[in-house]
Amino acid sequence: MKAEWIAADWGMSNLRVWAMNGRDVVAEATSDAGGNVLDREQFEGALLTLVSDWIDGPVDVWACGTVGSREGWIEAPYQPVPCAPAARTVIAPTQDPRLTVHILSGASQAEPADVMRGEETQIAGFLSGQPDFDGVLCLPGTHTKWARISAGELCHFRTAMTGELFQLLAQRSVLNHSVGDGWNGEAFATALDDALSRPERLATALFGIRAAEVLNGSDGAAARARLWGTLLGVELAAMKPYWLGQEVALIGAPNVTETYRAGLEAVGLTAQCHDGTAMVLAGLIAAREAS
Amino acid sequence: MKAEWIAADWGMSNLRVWAMNGRDVVAEATSDAGGNVLDREQFEGALLTLVSDWIDGPVDVWACGTVGSREGWIEAPYQPVPCAPAARTVIAPTQDPRLTVHILSGASQAEPADVMRGEETQIAGFLSGQPDFDGVLCLPGTHTKWARISAGELCHFRTAMTGELFQLLAQRSVLNHSVGDGWNGEAFATALDDALSRPERLATALFGIRAAEVLNGSDGAAARARLWGTLLGVELAAMKPYWLGQEVALIGAPNVTETYRAGLEAVGLTAQCHDGTAMVLAGLIAAREAS
Repeated sequence: MKAEWIAADWGMSNLRVWAMNGRDVVAEATSDAGGNVLDREQFEGALLTLVSDWIDGPVDVWACGTVGSREGWIEAPYQPVPCAPAARTVIAPTQDPRLTVHILSGASQAEPADVMRGEETQIAGFLSGQPDFDGVLCLPGTHTKWARISAGELCHFRTAMTGELFQLLAQRSVLNHSVGDGWNGEAFATALDDALSRPERLATALFGIRAAEVLNGSDGAAARARLWGTLLGVELAAMKPYWLGQEVALIGAPNVTETYRAGLEAVGLTAQCHDGTAMVLAGLIAAREAS
Repeated sequence: MKAEWIAADWGMSNLRVWAMNGRDVVAEATSDAGGNVLDREQFEGALLTLVSDWIDGPVDVWACGTVGSREGWIEAPYQPVPCAPAARTVIAPTQDPRLTVHILSGASQAEPADVMRGEETQIAGFLSGQPDFDGVLCLPGTHTKWARISAGELCHFRTAMTGELFQLLAQRSVLNHSVGDGWNGEAFATALDDALSRPERLATALFGIRAAEVLNGSDGAAARARLWGTLLGVELAAMKPYWLGQEVALIGAPNVTETYRAGLEAVGLTAQCHDGTAMVLAGLIAAREAS
């Protein structure tokens, strides 16, 4: 089985590749050779480890994500907004003459200072299916992106570190004694509402999760929902100019987009969820076809 | 050298003991036998390791902190506010007949749920020197406490996880690439002011520290000051009912009280700083003398 071309989503912690025939996936593979474990000269080898069985002659690879950062294979300079997302590439230096590796640029914003790398390709994938979309895309994750889309362009965006805060607090703070598995929709809704109306109380609300456990006994599901509700409530309070009166679509992993969908529902919005992996692949297909 | 009595500040990560003659310190010692590395039956041995040279007959030990938690030597139930701080003790079970170990209770609040354990003794120490103080004490640290004091009593209090958030973000988040040593007073003041007026922007302000470094180059001192300013600004926004128009005194380690002093100065308050170690020792002395 040989690939006509290869798509690659190359993040900090993982590399995911697809053997493509036109728009069809004919094989796929993943490894943990993410950008944060590779030196510059190791990227080509990490790619070939996954794709060498798919190639027997010249092949184009289209890649996005950390691979194009300053610490990646080669820096693909950010495109300043407003811009058509994922519309610029650089060619990575290779030793294997069969490879032509196109690396997509991320997007940057000067004021307020912000950057994205990888999400722009998901946005391009979404727009390839809905070219007339005018509204807001929210891409929840470690660093959640909110992006204003109009006339096929990424107009402006903002990043919230909510996902990383959740992970740090649930796993490495005093709250790791309190946060368990499961979910409690009522605790989520109450915490979200409190945080939306009094976002400044974040640091006290967080310790309140611990104090409630010490005084009233543990409920790991409620604590987990309360932590998410608190953090997402503060984020929604900050992002109000993005979502108020807007059409919002969510792109990401199903578990986290569902949390955001519930949060947006609490402020009166109906948001569709789109799978992040499908969108990044669609974005890589679109970038190849536009070239 | 023998001790008339022994004072002990027994936190999560450290044990600090003083050999006392009345109110005078005649010797001191510390170890890393904090509450979070000891099983219940190990507390007595950890104490004796530090103090056995100081005793040759019956001796009273006065201790506060984690040692009295549910996972400590013996649980010293919280005193509900309003209360005279550090006014209740339990006696720990001992095998060595020479030891009588008095463990001070922390304080709790039902609504909003909150707890402290250790800080109540610092408050008692402060009040032993300023019995007529009517105002607010702020005890910055991993879990910063704000406490309303009136007529010698702890009336109500709130905890902010600001110190723990700073540590997690500076050491374990994407910001660990940005935050360095040193300080930039202007970056601190600007971030504090921004966060005070728009506290809901916390999660975006945090990522903004990273984005600014990626786009504009690194300045570790500015990033560190900006992270502190952002987190402290959100805390001060939440704690406004505590400090607005109040006399505020700070108790804690000199580096962190200085950061809070600068933050309070930015909102127009002049706060005196008191050393946390001196206050906890004064509180243990006061508890012994009141018994």
